[in-house]
Amino acid sequence: NKDLFVLTYGALVAQLCKDYEKDEDVNKYLDKMGYSIGTRLVEDFLARSCVRRCHSYSEITDIIAQVAFKMYLGITPSVTCNNPSRTEFSLILDKNPLAEFVEELPAGRSSLCYCNLLCGIIRGALEMVHLAADVTFLQDRLKGDRVTEIGITFLKKLDEKKYRRKK
Amino acid sequence: NKDLFVLTYGALVAQLCKDYEKDEDVNKYLDKMGYSIGTRLVEDFLARSCVRRCHSYSEITDIIAQVAFKMYLGITPSVTCNNPSRTEFSLILDKNPLAEFVEELPAGRSSLCYCNLLCGIIRGALEMVHLAADVTFLQDRLKGDRVTEIGITFLKKLDEKKYRRKK
Repeated sequence: NKDLFVLTYGALVAQLCKDYEKDEDVNKYLDKMGYSIGTRLVEDFLARSCVRRCHSYSEITDIIAQVAFKMYLGITPSVTCNNPSRTEFSLILDKNPLAEFVEELPAGRSSLCYCNLLCGIIRGALEMVHLAADVTFLQDRLKGDRVTEIGITFLKKLDEKKYRRKK
Repeated sequence: NKDLFVLTYGALVAQLCKDYEKDEDVNKYLDKMGYSIGTRLVEDFLARSCVRRCHSYSEITDIIAQVAFKMYLGITPSVTCNNPSRTEFSLILDKNPLAEFVEELPAGRSSLCYCNLLCGIIRGALEMVHLAADVTFLQDRLKGDRVTEIGITFLKKLDEKKYRRKK
């Protein structure tokens, strides 16, 4: 049952908003927590998903969208590639289960990235398979955008040997 | 998938331990967050569980153990009654999914009630159906006890009309 998780996350964000005046600090905190979760969740993910070795950033992003998001949040974002060298991608979420009970951002919190935990999780999980990436929200329905868009920018040349799963 | 929730909860507790020096403050924080979650989760619970009207504290405690714990955490604690007037009960958990990845309490944190969120949730949910209760950990496997035991003490004379579900 995901409601307990979604409500717990909401209570966490609400409490952080009390503790930190600046949205930027809340966003950083959520990203940091997410990173720590991602570094642990990736083991569970690899063990249960049985994903094959990937040969491109595009394949990796597809697996995040189609396997990881499906497994943990029950949704499958669509993927777009944003640059010719195929290192920048977007995950487009029509709806965001983690923000299911949130209608709008709290007053005076217009720069809050409510679901920034997700960016941290993706960043942390990728780092554990030796892939450095920037992960940020590019659009957010909670800020009035039509969709929620998470941008993933891979930072290094892909080295197949490094990030393949150890058997 | 509950791993994401369990790891998110772990990251939350770890962060609180950095933010607050005293275990007591972390415990209070978790209880407060749990309370806020419980006051919202109860609606979802009543809508989905279709529980009947209860006629005793004993029935209420059974529903918490057999329906609510099963629904949200996938376990069914056993219930014991601890006093002749049948206002004090214990939920006995052989294992605690919320602490699944935790082997022991962090160093110097021997008074931490790691899962205190659960107490807050139960307290908040009960209050929304007009039942005042103290909810605390009486035993905790993370502290070396054989089982984990959550004590629920109902504080007021039962008034059937007040807490029955509104149709």
